[in-house]
Amino acid sequence: MKTLENMTTIEQMEEMTAKLKEQAVKVGAETYEDRVKAQTPHCKFGEDGVCCKNCSMGPCRVTPKGQRGICGADAHAIAARNYARMIAAGTASHSDHAREILHILHSTKKDGPYQVRDEAKLLRLAAEWGVKSEGRDIYDVAHEVAEVGLMEFGKPFGKMLFPKRAPKERQECWEKQDLWPRAIDREIATILHMTHMGNTADPEALIRQGIRTGLSNGWGGSMIGTEITDILFGTPVERTSEGNLGTLEKEMVNLVVHGHDPAFSEMVVTATELKELQDHAKKVGAKGINVLGLCCTANEVAMRHGVRMVGNFLQQENVILTGVCDMMCVDVQCIFPALPKLAACFHTKFVTSSPIARIPGATHVEFHPETALEQAKEIVKMAIDNFKNRDEGKIYIPEHKQPAVVGYPCEQIITKLDGVTNSHIDELGSYRPAVDAIKAGVIRGAVGIVGCNNPKVRPDFSHFAIMEELLKNDILIVATGCAAQLATKAGLLNKEAKWACGDGLRRVCDLVDIPPILHMGACVDISRILLLVAGISRDWGVNMNQLPIVGCAPEWMSEKAVSIANYVIGSGIDVYLGIQPQVMGSSEMAGWITEGTRKITGAGFIINTDPKELVKSIVDGIEAKRAAIGI
Amino acid sequence: MKTLENMTTIEQMEEMTAKLKEQAVKVGAETYEDRVKAQTPHCKFGEDGVCCKNCSMGPCRVTPKGQRGICGADAHAIAARNYARMIAAGTASHSDHAREILHILHSTKKDGPYQVRDEAKLLRLAAEWGVKSEGRDIYDVAHEVAEVGLMEFGKPFGKMLFPKRAPKERQECWEKQDLWPRAIDREIATILHMTHMGNTADPEALIRQGIRTGLSNGWGGSMIGTEITDILFGTPVERTSEGNLGTLEKEMVNLVVHGHDPAFSEMVVTATELKELQDHAKKVGAKGINVLGLCCTANEVAMRHGVRMVGNFLQQENVILTGVCDMMCVDVQCIFPALPKLAACFHTKFVTSSPIARIPGATHVEFHPETALEQAKEIVKMAIDNFKNRDEGKIYIPEHKQPAVVGYPCEQIITKLDGVTNSHIDELGSYRPAVDAIKAGVIRGAVGIVGCNNPKVRPDFSHFAIMEELLKNDILIVATGCAAQLATKAGLLNKEAKWACGDGLRRVCDLVDIPPILHMGACVDISRILLLVAGISRDWGVNMNQLPIVGCAPEWMSEKAVSIANYVIGSGIDVYLGIQPQVMGSSEMAGWITEGTRKITGAGFIINTDPKELVKSIVDGIEAKRAAIGI
Repeated sequence: MKTLENMTTIEQMEEMTAKLKEQAVKVGAETYEDRVKAQTPHCKFGEDGVCCKNCSMGPCRVTPKGQRGICGADAHAIAARNYARMIAAGTASHSDHAREILHILHSTKKDGPYQVRDEAKLLRLAAEWGVKSEGRDIYDVAHEVAEVGLMEFGKPFGKMLFPKRAPKERQECWEKQDLWPRAIDREIATILHMTHMGNTADPEALIRQGIRTGLSNGWGGSMIGTEITDILFGTPVERTSEGNLGTLEKEMVNLVVHGHDPAFSEMVVTATELKELQDHAKKVGAKGINVLGLCCTANEVAMRHGVRMVGNFLQQENVILTGVCDMMCVDVQCIFPALPKLAACFHTKFVTSSPIARIPGATHVEFHPETALEQAKEIVKMAIDNFKNRDEGKIYIPEHKQPAVVGYPCEQIITKLDGVTNSHIDELGSYRPAVDAIKAGVIRGAVGIVGCNNPKVRPDFSHFAIMEELLKNDILIVATGCAAQLATKAGLLNKEAKWACGDGLRRVCDLVDIPPILHMGACVDISRILLLVAGISRDWGVNMNQLPIVGCAPEWMSEKAVSIANYVIGSGIDVYLGIQPQVMGSSEMAGWITEGTRKITGAGFIINTDPKELVKSIVDGIEAKRAAIGI
Repeated sequence: MKTLENMTTIEQMEEMTAKLKEQAVKVGAETYEDRVKAQTPHCKFGEDGVCCKNCSMGPCRVTPKGQRGICGADAHAIAARNYARMIAAGTASHSDHAREILHILHSTKKDGPYQVRDEAKLLRLAAEWGVKSEGRDIYDVAHEVAEVGLMEFGKPFGKMLFPKRAPKERQECWEKQDLWPRAIDREIATILHMTHMGNTADPEALIRQGIRTGLSNGWGGSMIGTEITDILFGTPVERTSEGNLGTLEKEMVNLVVHGHDPAFSEMVVTATELKELQDHAKKVGAKGINVLGLCCTANEVAMRHGVRMVGNFLQQENVILTGVCDMMCVDVQCIFPALPKLAACFHTKFVTSSPIARIPGATHVEFHPETALEQAKEIVKMAIDNFKNRDEGKIYIPEHKQPAVVGYPCEQIITKLDGVTNSHIDELGSYRPAVDAIKAGVIRGAVGIVGCNNPKVRPDFSHFAIMEELLKNDILIVATGCAAQLATKAGLLNKEAKWACGDGLRRVCDLVDIPPILHMGACVDISRILLLVAGISRDWGVNMNQLPIVGCAPEWMSEKAVSIANYVIGSGIDVYLGIQPQVMGSSEMAGWITEGTRKITGAGFIINTDPKELVKSIVDGIEAKRAAIGI
């Protein structure tokens, strides 16, 4: 059997990182590996979730001699409160990103810096939300849609809108279990209130509010973020890109956009395409401007422009260590505050652009929608002008890069499936071909692999090991965020990756003309996965929690991930975690997240820090789901 | 000079607690003192604010070998983030209480369980908020006012309304410094987003957002809570009450309402007045029903009904230890989760009533506005039926109780001042007489003493020592929350307390016929103090930050207190703290909260854990403010 050639192995990536670490040592710079060493071992109370800082009588922590905090909160109350607050912060982050995007939509105008690119999607959403569009200017419609979206954060009455997109069984579950979120910000505030000193000490109540808040993200903030971003910047379609540090160009101005919210980076990408700036780059001796994405901003701009992806979360320092990053321009989330200090060891300009992410030592250019393009041009010029400041003695660009195919939102997946549908017999625009392949067993199931990197495990190794094994077992993968980027770096995100698959999956990939790992976007786009699973559920007539489809976050680290995990189990989809949630000091909470939630939503967490064991449990889980529905 | 006789001293209170502790030992019950011992010493990282649990790469903490977390966040970033999150949680708690009250207002109807009691105040607020009232049914007006209030939490555009009540100089400061809050929940979500992994690491940005969020509480959530509570249940007027454990009655059914939100306790009080239940109490052998308040719910019902106040925060276990508490019915905030276990050692029924505060071991009766009175009756009946279950061998009621005069919202203070205004010469309805007394130096200034108890200091002692010294120095005190209740317990909250004052203040108290400590309500009512200071500023023509008026929280412990402290300094009023905020591991944060904010708002914290030194600095601070404006 032919195997996947030309792959970049984890070992090769590690070698590359080791060489870049030499760069760091040379300039006396600290990197995350140093900090991990200094922070290990971690505080056990914090890791177990049994340390409480929610009032100033404490901090308190559960020990054999002190089983309760001063107020009387026990390990279960403390762990549950800490966990709920992680969900609140994660929900706030994803959703606040959506709020920003809605305000951008509200600022759109004909000939403005921001315009509506996907009118059809806007009109569909307008119809869904009861906004009249017939005979109206498209921008009037856009503004009213933005207003409806913005009210999802704070409307005082009623319930949220997007959960109505879920299959009937799910909606009934949310109604019955009182999990249907009311408004995004309200759910967040409710968690903070419940976890304030002297309020809820009952893990079940916090677990339930955690799921409701998570759902306000998945079927709320994140889904709004994704929809509106598509409307503003275009719904992605299949396109090629490349990934890893080898995409940095010695001869070009390297401008890296990093973060999550594409509002500003879209403008930066637009600015780099302007002739005046291209000319300016040439004038300073560069062959052109090489704009690159890092972290989820990479996923956003790769999906819509084919912009190359220089790396994922734990690669952010490596990018600067190459010595050829002329500028790193960041928006929000997952940005190491260590970066300005590191950038100062090189010539790299480090620019912050959002009031949400202010970092000492950065150049701050606060982006405003009205002046976004002008500001982007200014920034690109600053990057170009910095090209000459490189220190030749500090340059090392690793050679590794891989081609990638990206851009598989639900719409693109449907288009691909339509290509293998016999339109004389079957209806177009459905997931039926995918359902048929799963039913037939050619594909055994599907896994959404998502999430961050976390130095608590060997970075990227878990992602890789799990992906490799799933593909061999004919399990299709959809990926977002840093997981999708590991697939890019490894070379698994292109059609040649079919050689890493079992026979069944390979045949499907050939037939449908897709890679076996579908890049669905940034972490905010996990909402696309929800809609995919909801669509399959509808087209198959099998409930979401019965499908052989699960989620996996092998290396998660952020509070957003905790919020995501909760909306995924809230949607009835099991989640396999490679990092322990910080609740394990409470036997009750350990029980709630793994088993207890199953009685509420039909899904729970399966946790295993060994990737080999974790992937085995995923395969077993999928086969068990198949058996349960008799396929 | 005559001195205050019949006072209850801190030593007497401590003796009482010691005797009740014997009760606890007898039944094998744990109390907070045991838990304090087991939790001491506290984790130094947590106390210093340099422990970060905001992602699962950690927890990280700043040590000599590890000066930065794994992401690179340093002590300043970590302490600032933790601090900002305390403000977010405190703001969410106070404001969510207001949201509940607004929903109650929205549910009011003629002949409904909830009605509008202060129509004049409703009409004033309607006019202020642009709600038409002429010719409309008062309940239509009430519902529209509720809707406007509810939009303050989540409106997507514009800025909040109540800050317009502040003097012009303050409004200009908020405009200029970008501190004018947009919407309550939005400010909370912004803090959570800014403090999520990989966002803001700049203490100044977090300090600013913390103040803005605090202002959304003080000139938002809390002020709305207070206004609407007055509209619903009546604006308090001067009335007498009593306080301390001696208010428990051996021969009566003792029903204690505990928490903060008066929506349900108002109904409970109403229910206890019903003849059918009074008769039922007699039938079980009791002389009647003795309803008592604990914590801020006590302040709410004392102000409006004269209900007696059984104690403040650290007295909650003592109440049960008397063995005669037939029921403790709680709503939200500051409720020890230890209580159900303690109640189980006695006959006490412990009832929770809110989904916000679910506590294992409690009987949960979830209160709904529509059925509130029926539910309250049920609960009162449950308490009565429990009277017979007392264990005679476990009863000890301390004798201490003190008379108190309560109920001094701004309206009542104005009424009192009108009484000493010569209406032929001076305008009625102003703070001029108070201003004149301060200008003349008969009163040197005023201090708002607020906040909780905290076992980090000798409970209630700090409150007492500071109050005693301020009165001696002719400084008028306004008090809320647990501080007001200490004054009650000590006997300082009645007109006889003038004998604890210097000559000047005593003369004013005599003349105006007030006690030298004015009970302004619950902790949510600190908004009344803001309006008082704003009114004095307007009537005097001196800016809020120049007045010889300051705030003091000698024993604060909750996140609400951190939010409050921020809206007070945001309002230009210095805050004297007797407990260190958990940021002292960061020199930058220590500088920001004590000095840095002065450049932004004109006020800051003065922190001293020694009450004698703290009160000296207050007196000096007030004299310095006087000198600065030339009086």
